[in-house]
Amino acid sequence: MHWPKGVDGLCYGGDYNPEQWPEDVWREDIELMRRAGVNLVSVGVFAWSRLEPVEGHYDFGWLDRILDLLAEGGVKAALATPTASPPPWFSLAYPDALPVRGDGTRLLHGSRDTYCASAPAYRDACRRIAGALAERYAGHPALALWHVHNEYGTACHCDHAATAFRGWLRKEYGDLDALNDAWVSAFWSQHYSAWEQIFPPRATQYMPNPGQLLDFRRFWSDELLSAYVEQRDLLRAATPDVPITTNYVFGGWVPVDHARWAREVDLVAIDHYPSDAGLGAEEQTAFGADLARSWARGKPWLLMESAPNLIYTRDRMHAKEPGRMIRHSLSHVARGSRGAMFFQWRAPRGGAERYHSALVPHAGPDSRVYREAVTLGGVLSRLSEVDGSVMASTAIAWDAASWWALQAPGMPMEIDYAAEVQAAHRALWHAGVTADFVALTDPLPYSLLVLPAHYLISDEAAEAVRAYVDSGGHLVATYLSGVADEHGRVRLGGYPGALRDVLGVRVEEFQPSPEGWAELVSLAGATQVQPGVTRHEYGAGIAWYISARLDDPTYQDVLTAAARDAGVAIAGVAPGVEVVRRDGGWVFALNHTDEPHDIPAEGIEILTGAPVTGVLTLPAGAYAIIRPHP
Amino acid sequence: MHWPKGVDGLCYGGDYNPEQWPEDVWREDIELMRRAGVNLVSVGVFAWSRLEPVEGHYDFGWLDRILDLLAEGGVKAALATPTASPPPWFSLAYPDALPVRGDGTRLLHGSRDTYCASAPAYRDACRRIAGALAERYAGHPALALWHVHNEYGTACHCDHAATAFRGWLRKEYGDLDALNDAWVSAFWSQHYSAWEQIFPPRATQYMPNPGQLLDFRRFWSDELLSAYVEQRDLLRAATPDVPITTNYVFGGWVPVDHARWAREVDLVAIDHYPSDAGLGAEEQTAFGADLARSWARGKPWLLMESAPNLIYTRDRMHAKEPGRMIRHSLSHVARGSRGAMFFQWRAPRGGAERYHSALVPHAGPDSRVYREAVTLGGVLSRLSEVDGSVMASTAIAWDAASWWALQAPGMPMEIDYAAEVQAAHRALWHAGVTADFVALTDPLPYSLLVLPAHYLISDEAAEAVRAYVDSGGHLVATYLSGVADEHGRVRLGGYPGALRDVLGVRVEEFQPSPEGWAELVSLAGATQVQPGVTRHEYGAGIAWYISARLDDPTYQDVLTAAARDAGVAIAGVAPGVEVVRRDGGWVFALNHTDEPHDIPAEGIEILTGAPVTGVLTLPAGAYAIIRPHP
Amino acid sequence: MHWPKGVDGLCYGGDYNPEQWPEDVWREDIELMRRAGVNLVSVGVFAWSRLEPVEGHYDFGWLDRILDLLAEGGVKAALATPTASPPPWFSLAYPDALPVRGDGTRLLHGSRDTYCASAPAYRDACRRIAGALAERYAGHPALALWHVHNEYGTACHCDHAATAFRGWLRKEYGDLDALNDAWVSAFWSQHYSAWEQIFPPRATQYMPNPGQLLDFRRFWSDELLSAYVEQRDLLRAATPDVPITTNYVFGGWVPVDHARWAREVDLVAIDHYPSDAGLGAEEQTAFGADLARSWARGKPWLLMESAPNLIYTRDRMHAKEPGRMIRHSLSHVARGSRGAMFFQWRAPRGGAERYHSALVPHAGPDSRVYREAVTLGGVLSRLSEVDGSVMASTAIAWDAASWWALQAPGMPMEIDYAAEVQAAHRALWHAGVTADFVALTDPLPYSLLVLPAHYLISDEAAEAVRAYVDSGGHLVATYLSGVADEHGRVRLGGYPGALRDVLGVRVEEFQPSPEGWAELVSLAGATQVQPGVTRHEYGAGIAWYISARLDDPTYQDVLTAAARDAGVAIAGVAPGVEVVRRDGGWVFALNHTDEPHDIPAEGIEILTGAPVTGVLTLPAGAYAIIRPHP
Repeated sequence: MHWPKGVDGLCYGGDYNPEQWPEDVWREDIELMRRAGVNLVSVGVFAWSRLEPVEGHYDFGWLDRILDLLAEGGVKAALATPTASPPPWFSLAYPDALPVRGDGTRLLHGSRDTYCASAPAYRDACRRIAGALAERYAGHPALALWHVHNEYGTACHCDHAATAFRGWLRKEYGDLDALNDAWVSAFWSQHYSAWEQIFPPRATQYMPNPGQLLDFRRFWSDELLSAYVEQRDLLRAATPDVPITTNYVFGGWVPVDHARWAREVDLVAIDHYPSDAGLGAEEQTAFGADLARSWARGKPWLLMESAPNLIYTRDRMHAKEPGRMIRHSLSHVARGSRGAMFFQWRAPRGGAERYHSALVPHAGPDSRVYREAVTLGGVLSRLSEVDGSVMASTAIAWDAASWWALQAPGMPMEIDYAAEVQAAHRALWHAGVTADFVALTDPLPYSLLVLPAHYLISDEAAEAVRAYVDSGGHLVATYLSGVADEHGRVRLGGYPGALRDVLGVRVEEFQPSPEGWAELVSLAGATQVQPGVTRHEYGAGIAWYISARLDDPTYQDVLTAAARDAGVAIAGVAPGVEVVRRDGGWVFALNHTDEPHDIPAEGIEILTGAPVTGVLTLPAGAYAIIRPHP
Repeated sequence: MHWPKGVDGLCYGGDYNPEQWPEDVWREDIELMRRAGVNLVSVGVFAWSRLEPVEGHYDFGWLDRILDLLAEGGVKAALATPTASPPPWFSLAYPDALPVRGDGTRLLHGSRDTYCASAPAYRDACRRIAGALAERYAGHPALALWHVHNEYGTACHCDHAATAFRGWLRKEYGDLDALNDAWVSAFWSQHYSAWEQIFPPRATQYMPNPGQLLDFRRFWSDELLSAYVEQRDLLRAATPDVPITTNYVFGGWVPVDHARWAREVDLVAIDHYPSDAGLGAEEQTAFGADLARSWARGKPWLLMESAPNLIYTRDRMHAKEPGRMIRHSLSHVARGSRGAMFFQWRAPRGGAERYHSALVPHAGPDSRVYREAVTLGGVLSRLSEVDGSVMASTAIAWDAASWWALQAPGMPMEIDYAAEVQAAHRALWHAGVTADFVALTDPLPYSLLVLPAHYLISDEAAEAVRAYVDSGGHLVATYLSGVADEHGRVRLGGYPGALRDVLGVRVEEFQPSPEGWAELVSLAGATQVQPGVTRHEYGAGIAWYISARLDDPTYQDVLTAAARDAGVAIAGVAPGVEVVRRDGGWVFALNHTDEPHDIPAEGIEILTGAPVTGVLTLPAGAYAIIRPHP
Repeated sequence: MHWPKGVDGLCYGGDYNPEQWPEDVWREDIELMRRAGVNLVSVGVFAWSRLEPVEGHYDFGWLDRILDLLAEGGVKAALATPTASPPPWFSLAYPDALPVRGDGTRLLHGSRDTYCASAPAYRDACRRIAGALAERYAGHPALALWHVHNEYGTACHCDHAATAFRGWLRKEYGDLDALNDAWVSAFWSQHYSAWEQIFPPRATQYMPNPGQLLDFRRFWSDELLSAYVEQRDLLRAATPDVPITTNYVFGGWVPVDHARWAREVDLVAIDHYPSDAGLGAEEQTAFGADLARSWARGKPWLLMESAPNLIYTRDRMHAKEPGRMIRHSLSHVARGSRGAMFFQWRAPRGGAERYHSALVPHAGPDSRVYREAVTLGGVLSRLSEVDGSVMASTAIAWDAASWWALQAPGMPMEIDYAAEVQAAHRALWHAGVTADFVALTDPLPYSLLVLPAHYLISDEAAEAVRAYVDSGGHLVATYLSGVADEHGRVRLGGYPGALRDVLGVRVEEFQPSPEGWAELVSLAGATQVQPGVTRHEYGAGIAWYISARLDDPTYQDVLTAAARDAGVAIAGVAPGVEVVRRDGGWVFALNHTDEPHDIPAEGIEILTGAPVTGVLTLPAGAYAIIRPHP
């Protein structure tokens, strides 16, 4: 495995910002990287103002020097285009390219991401700086990967965005009749009689049109993708042999359909920062890794950013206790990541993220975190042999558009789509079932398919689900799945319109309450298994419907029953113990608990070389990777 | 009873938006309406963009067709002027007519109500579309009622509004000295030396002037009323025999003095959506109905909108369980409503309110809700005979201006005026006492008068209260009543300035605390009855003062004691059982509980024809309307 | 003691706004002032619009008359320049001088403080009105003190502010390299290549630069100070013998370094409104008074505003129960205040602060509050003899810049610096230890020095602390102290960078959690005393480090132990009993509890003339001031 270009084995490293440091620190950096086994660093992600301090005047000297040092030190570079943070001069020169909120507030530099990706001046400036980097570093020995931009996800509501949105809508709908129909603009007198009347969702008197909101998200996903593709094509032309990617950020505010984007990258790269403390972080880690692998659909993927320790969350930062950095990394690698990368290499003295953790913390290398980083480097260096895809006979549906549609105001209650999907994944994770994520129109070679709150289902997707069950597949769908079509229009005649027949139920009413979601379900072929759960034999398959919000243990029981029904293999592991099996027989075992646990396994533990016969006892907090007997 | 024009018996129906549906649905609509007994629908409320898709170009064809169909089907139309939701073309053509928030944000179309009612361009456009409708449909056989606009209540802070506000103030105050005095502008150096210096309340550094806030609300009430009157006069000229109304919306944000507006409508129409679940919804229903009847002061009134099932509330929608739609409708009818109307006839596929409930829900006519709608239609059709006014010998004061004044920042604690008034009404409702609402300067032919937190009392109103008690009336006033004059200026010398003499108390200090409101009360003629409650013999009457926030049972006890004192008849019904008596002897009995209850009654139950002798046993959730023996 | 000019004894009075009242009230005011012993009132604070109702046209007649009346009545005036609230005409004439929020919202008059202190038009207008007042009243017999402006603290983000900010930065940093270095602008590509690229912090996409935020606060402190100094110099020229001050307001939003400003005033004047109810108000009172005395560094200081009763807090107003107004006043006087002043003399009928309490409340002089005001006047009149500085051998560090720096987003958790400092002061207050506040670069003639969360420490300050301990001082530093340099840049190599050596610890990691703050501490010379607390012998002194958030009793125990260690005298008083000793031997004893308590004392109780021998028994809620035997 030599991938990306020139990297031996798994990737290990993080974002490296030498421009923040005097050059005498650089040599120590290289030395510390070598000591830790770092082999890849992302360089230049936020360096635009140092690379082009004055418009059109480049200063590549420092980047030349650091790339040379890295090359000498045997560390490869994921060289970034710095377009996620335009310099202060850009704001002054092109005020019309600054982003505008829905309420009309124009944002200024002083943070990052202060641009509108629909603004011609911004696009031009991006092409120029990306082109200059491509030209200068095309043949540099350190260059292993192009890292375009950072965490695309910034929407804008300005007039440039309005123009681009109209263009996208014209292409999508062809004529205004189709758009008016899709948005049900007859409601509240919103019928459009000219394209110029259409704007991004902006501050308005009361609830906005949900169709407009949904399409604005879709538009931005495509608009940002076009910004990426523009840079990618330019880099590709300069360096046809260097892979190109951009790192994904995950969150309800991000108007990016990551599965769709995966077609345009050479490597699916994700940034992953669990927002929960405790075991919740491990649950989220497995969730994120499975999503990334699934988005990649066979392409390589990589954990591009993660936190060695303190992470921002809603209220305050929380810590990654000793051992968790390694176990999280291994959870990603187990699930297919080509390594483990961190934000960031060295903690900065200042800037907004001065307390975001780093492999070399403020305390320096004489620190618990750097010592753990050295250990992790050793562990990763021994795992190059691991190959084979992750074994999963269960799939969970993932649909970015359903997430967006459920965020529109006016739903019977606020449903957090990502939380619903993660709840399904968590239930399976605790049951010891590894899952892929799929789109309904993907091939579905699975024994069990779970649709959590899959709100939008097109006719085509509904037909795919029907065919899947009809031919023997087992399906579990939860409330709100299939209620609306791909434009968010409610399907009539009884919920869940798209799946009534396959689920054998008809729902007359939603009954949201402080206790959670519930529905008035009429059986139409299905039988009730327990309150809120029905089961329907359809063709050669089985379709379960969960119409109420279940607590975690009940949810796990229902999914376990469905998995058994479907013949899915269930690893009998203790709660908090994570086991992932790879084609070819490698087994990753991570004990996230405070107690020792036995794992059924057979082979050689790679890190210790010890033989494992039948059972491996994993101490509290420990991990093992078992190579199968040949 | 043939009212409005051409409607037999009680009105039954709801908002009907055929423009959202293909015409093949229309015939099913008419058929389903007939099956349910619907006889009146509001048409065209949000149809401006379909009626005038391009400025000055009308498309009345579809409206002609649906009105003809309705007429054929025997369903009458409350034909709306669609001015509550200007079309997208309007925003583009008249950006200065878009509304502006206090912080300067100009709102765009994309929702509804995106206009400034002070903008000449908006007023012009309203007159044109209303005029066109009047001209075309003046003689249409379906036309029973004009429904002007929808839920007037949108304020604006733009420069048009500023100009209009200044004009209103000039008229109100005559000169700046009077205004400066009313606003106590000497505080914080706010003295105005020219009219041009006055603006709507806009974003400012710290707490705004409460006098300015109060007058801005009053201004908007009058300004919106003038917008209504303009349309009304134009419609009246075209169809002198068709009654005209506009539907009221209720809420703390609404700058409309509904009692004042009642003088200008032919029918007081209210939209009523309880925000509470459980018995709270029934309490709110009775409250809203009694308000509407009282605002109407003898004119007809009608529940113009209500929800068959799911309703928006603060956090999520909540459901109307089986039976409640009928009982709520009957509570309104019992209290004088000329029928029961709903928003809406058929649930839309999309738009912001796609989950707002409807008589024909997403599930279609084969649904619990439509079946209940059919039942309700049957019930209503049998109630045409009910006549006579609602019997009430108790009145509660209602004063929109006190509501607004108490919303200004800088009060000792936040007092929700509407909640205070509803608490009084709720206590009486639970005690079995039916109440009217009054203004203090109304005639007061009541045995008991309750003033809950009636913050603003003018000299004239104080004199009326004094005369009422002096001549034998019984009064209960609660904290904050009479503390300020009609401009919100605190009356000096001890609280509550306007009522000190009649209440026989003098309050030196307010003592708000986490436990609620309390006061340091000196007795000045009154005697203390219990903590926080005094009683004063004044002239031939009695005046009680409640100086502390009481819990619901204590409040109910105090009001019951005062009612007994005053000789008010108290229905001895179980909690959750609602009994309303009408002049002429009809009795409405609604059992909102889960247990059967006995009601004392005598006559014939109208719906069943069964004789009632002395006692009627009402099963859980049931209702009965008893015709007196002749 | 005749100070300020012409005032006998301690100052007593408050803000007096005769412009809000008809002249017939004025004579009653003077009479009531005399009855209460009032000898000083602040006049004209918010009178600009009455003094200059039209630009350039002054109306001094009413002020002449009231000042004459005051002079006749023997009441002195703190004559204010009214520049804190420009009149409405100012907004119309100079819209560019209205303040602008970070999000671009321009504020309008309608409240107070609607100006940008960087706007030339505002500065010009201030000089004109201040000059006119100085000229007219220079020799007036009532004039005792100039009261410039009111509560400076209003920042602005407009283009005038941007220009001034750039000027300040140029002066502070000399060149852009230094600024880029201080702000670590290399992070997120924020490198500035021209001064014009720098703006106030305005709405931006994500977290702003903490260096920019910190300097923007510092800039505003200096900018507002220059606005003060400009007026002061003009008044000084007119009346060289009249002292000049401005009243400080305290709060996290206030960009004013009060200690720095103290150099420019003749009298440190504070406004003090405890935000807590219960004993918290007494704790805050002592805290505020000790801060003011310490800021004054030997200059006179005065409680310029406080509330007789109701005070605004976060959610609602809360009351000052009987007796507390006097005890709070005495707590200030005990700690050095030259008297006790109130906002305000007479409660207004209207305006935003209509319920802010007053010495003459809405109820008038026949009220609990006015009677207590008369008592207080009598008490204060007997305390002229008290002299001598407050005895304190303990100091707490106070650093406005650390407060501001800790407010920047991106900290590991939100740390409220003022709350941290107050927690230290509260622990000492309860332990009976009186403390001064100091800057680290002040002389440190103390036995014990406490540094609570002193986030920013320059090299110079660190050296001062080191020297203090080395020469025998006792130090207690709490978490986050010394973590960053004066620009907020984190000191590397282990926390707390500036104090590692003196504290004898090295912190590798912060461990914020829902339980509070904690750290991973390595001992480097110190010994652990108890969890979260270490003690280090350094030179001739001792340095304690508190690395975790302790509960109040534990914190008090640790500080008591450190104080004992340091030989600080600890008054053995009951919790809630406040004892302050003055050089010369006067003792103030305040019993804030509901029980009688014994106080060790010797001398004559001044108010009663009773001898005190060994022990004074203080009834619940009582106070005593003991004159030492000569």
